[in-house]
Amino acid sequence: MSEPASNCRRAYDDALSLMRTVSDLTSAAALLGWDQETYMPPLAAQARAEQIATLNALAHSMMTDERAVRLAEYFERELHSSAEELTILETRIARVFARDVRRALKVPEEFVRRKSQVVVLAQEAWKEARARASFAKFYNDLRALVELSLHEAELRGYQGHPYNALVDLYEPGMTVETLDPLFDRLEQETLRILDYVKGLSPASNAAVPRVSSTGQEQLLAARTIVEAIGFNFSAGRVDISAHPFCTSLATSDVRLTTRTADDNPISCLLGLIHEAGHGLYEQGIDPTLERTFARDGASMGIHESQSLFWENIIARSEEFWEFALPIIERFIPQFPTMTPTMMFYALNRVEPSLIRIEADEVTYNLHIIIRYRIEKELMAGTLNVAEIPERWNVLVRELLGLDVPDDANGCLQDIHWSLGAFGYFPSYTLGKLYAAMFRSALLKAMPDTFDHVRRGEFAAICQWLKENIHHWGRTLCPLELVEQVTGRSLAEKDFLEYVWEKVMRVYPSS
Amino acid sequence: MSEPASNCRRAYDDALSLMRTVSDLTSAAALLGWDQETYMPPLAAQARAEQIATLNALAHSMMTDERAVRLAEYFERELHSSAEELTILETRIARVFARDVRRALKVPEEFVRRKSQVVVLAQEAWKEARARASFAKFYNDLRALVELSLHEAELRGYQGHPYNALVDLYEPGMTVETLDPLFDRLEQETLRILDYVKGLSPASNAAVPRVSSTGQEQLLAARTIVEAIGFNFSAGRVDISAHPFCTSLATSDVRLTTRTADDNPISCLLGLIHEAGHGLYEQGIDPTLERTFARDGASMGIHESQSLFWENIIARSEEFWEFALPIIERFIPQFPTMTPTMMFYALNRVEPSLIRIEADEVTYNLHIIIRYRIEKELMAGTLNVAEIPERWNVLVRELLGLDVPDDANGCLQDIHWSLGAFGYFPSYTLGKLYAAMFRSALLKAMPDTFDHVRRGEFAAICQWLKENIHHWGRTLCPLELVEQVTGRSLAEKDFLEYVWEKVMRVYPSS
Repeated sequence: MSEPASNCRRAYDDALSLMRTVSDLTSAAALLGWDQETYMPPLAAQARAEQIATLNALAHSMMTDERAVRLAEYFERELHSSAEELTILETRIARVFARDVRRALKVPEEFVRRKSQVVVLAQEAWKEARARASFAKFYNDLRALVELSLHEAELRGYQGHPYNALVDLYEPGMTVETLDPLFDRLEQETLRILDYVKGLSPASNAAVPRVSSTGQEQLLAARTIVEAIGFNFSAGRVDISAHPFCTSLATSDVRLTTRTADDNPISCLLGLIHEAGHGLYEQGIDPTLERTFARDGASMGIHESQSLFWENIIARSEEFWEFALPIIERFIPQFPTMTPTMMFYALNRVEPSLIRIEADEVTYNLHIIIRYRIEKELMAGTLNVAEIPERWNVLVRELLGLDVPDDANGCLQDIHWSLGAFGYFPSYTLGKLYAAMFRSALLKAMPDTFDHVRRGEFAAICQWLKENIHHWGRTLCPLELVEQVTGRSLAEKDFLEYVWEKVMRVYPSS
Repeated sequence: MSEPASNCRRAYDDALSLMRTVSDLTSAAALLGWDQETYMPPLAAQARAEQIATLNALAHSMMTDERAVRLAEYFERELHSSAEELTILETRIARVFARDVRRALKVPEEFVRRKSQVVVLAQEAWKEARARASFAKFYNDLRALVELSLHEAELRGYQGHPYNALVDLYEPGMTVETLDPLFDRLEQETLRILDYVKGLSPASNAAVPRVSSTGQEQLLAARTIVEAIGFNFSAGRVDISAHPFCTSLATSDVRLTTRTADDNPISCLLGLIHEAGHGLYEQGIDPTLERTFARDGASMGIHESQSLFWENIIARSEEFWEFALPIIERFIPQFPTMTPTMMFYALNRVEPSLIRIEADEVTYNLHIIIRYRIEKELMAGTLNVAEIPERWNVLVRELLGLDVPDDANGCLQDIHWSLGAFGYFPSYTLGKLYAAMFRSALLKAMPDTFDHVRRGEFAAICQWLKENIHHWGRTLCPLELVEQVTGRSLAEKDFLEYVWEKVMRVYPSS
């Protein structure tokens, strides 16, 4: 095998050209996926699955061909010695390139294709199983997916627990060894909060208003608010889909979706604010990273920290509603009179519930811990797929104090397993912890943050997030990024202080 | 070079696998293009141009790589002797494959990229030139494009006139040798019609009603009508764009666009019917051709014959308005009272005008003949780019009897040259001739066609078009297809009879 280039610059330019092609393929696949959820005619589903599979397979094959491997090897060998020819950002991009090529090489194209096929069928089985609350209908597919994930863990390799190979896909560098003690402490403290709340009445009985309103009214109000927050509609858009999501074809083309419910404009709004948090991240990535493998979030957890920052920390604050209520009243005149204080109380109740995506900020993490434990046990081989429902119900009883009436309200509620996305759930809780740590850093840098929020002035907040978090893209690992922004290591402390403060206000101890 | 496969079947399957990949890339590029005209955020234009260019370049490189060439050579050599292993349709698909590979090989990737770049800049220059009615502002780009087209003709090769190389791109097998006498006869007879009309008054002064109506009203009425005609909205959709078009990602995913004008619901309707004619063609292609190079229209002219069949032959008939007027009145209650007869008269006036896309069915062909002559002269080197405006104005005076007030109403009116699409215009007139020939064949097979139209029953008409024209896709050449459907060679006779009949009714000779 001959030397790929006589110097680092030429190797970098060669890698850049390859990244551009792969990145354009990935963006096209993202548009195909976005369109599938928004505008695609119903009969086109099968053709669409093939189109997406072809683009992904092409991207995988380009990332694992001889040229890509030679370049990755070159960077691994030479990047330290000849890095002075590249800027710091370019050096980091080259590292991301080498890491992604290595990662792609771990999984043969045959495996990628097989997993795609299993996933397509499993999603149909899961939908039916959930609709009928019948675990048996999902059992075979779930077993196949668990076996595939075990196989994938072996292919990818790991140190310590096999689950580490999967968690690393969503949260680079994260391991069971870090998560176990963290989640244990979080669980104990969450149970302490629930214990505290149990004997007390909330300070207010205010509830989130249900009010009949058209999808158009809800969307216009929500759109106006996320535009005021800073989402750039010249470089993005919003559409309706069954499940809200955010996808990005370029920093200049970031797409949000939301859903509208007949009587719940606040749910539509919070959903869109969540996605706009992801969207602001994507729009804020340094333009230098465009069409490289580094144009993406540092991890799923960091991405989630941005959506949760806006949805929870900002939009569930009292100050936010001083800004937002007049806008809602303008677009939805039938919205009942609420004060910002009432909205704060209504949006910050704590109460154990069965469904993860409806959970409050405090009990949400218990839902994640249940899934984390089950996934870990499946990957360690100490739990069989057939035992999942029983194990699930025992954990819900233990952590949330609730009885699970059926599997639709239990282990069949999430889409993730049908997608083969074992290892994803921890990112949600990590996102909450990151968000709270970023909140502390922001408040230190900008103590009057919530005065800005009250006045509907979000530019300084967005600027801080962009400079400190967004613009780095994937050039920093999540743990590096957290340390750089906060000066501290990942911990649950800030999150717990943040929720204790809210809980003490919503549930005063008389 | 080793034998690619031990038999025809294996070669076919190999070609099929390659066609599927290229076809998925082309479909993804089509979605990127559709999205650009409908929903893309404005700042995304540059990233989008790069994404489309990458996908097209990849498709071109896969169509010209060693494997593709080996397969094309094999088919060229073996298809006659070992074709019994393939079905008739497969044999034809293999021929289309070999032809497309040969065609792609004629043009190096470097040329494709350069032309794309020139075209992007030329479109901006053309828009500005047209807005300011200044040919000088377009001159340099137009010269570059003419030179590129001359170069392309040399690359592609031709017999006889260099223009043949370009016409063949849009109308396989068509040549100046066929077009010259055809267009001459058409010109003479069109001038005879204009001469006849000149001295006469129309039978009715009815005009197409202008009526204030919302885009939503216009779109709903038009959508309801094209759905009744047979366009399948489970396998397609309609959106709004600045210029109406039809694009197809699969037979199950065919997309129309239209534009709405404040006061002209009939223009919106006819525009959508035109695009639905293209769309019915795409939806009617044999599913066996899915993801092969044969899933497309036989030529641009045949495609245009389908849109013009519906827009002109059906939708400008009196019977059509018996069906359509009640639907328009339902969705646009303020639409003035019109009878089907009044609509017929209003939609079939003949009058020379300056702008091609606003021309009537009769004079339209003169606009095409003007462009045809100029393009041919440019390619023969007997006309310089600088002489275009003068030549244009002379021809308009000669054929349409009008003075051109400025170049915006003259040689700058069409987008085609700025796209480098020299050779495209003849397909419009060929489409009219094909459509009239198909009309004759249909009326012979189904003499009560217009009774069906009157009752809004389009199924039998669609079925006839599908069986005779649509389902073949590109497996037949346009001239083969015409002969197969009509039993006759391409000629202007049917078209002239068709328009003379209309003209005699609209302009009775007292």
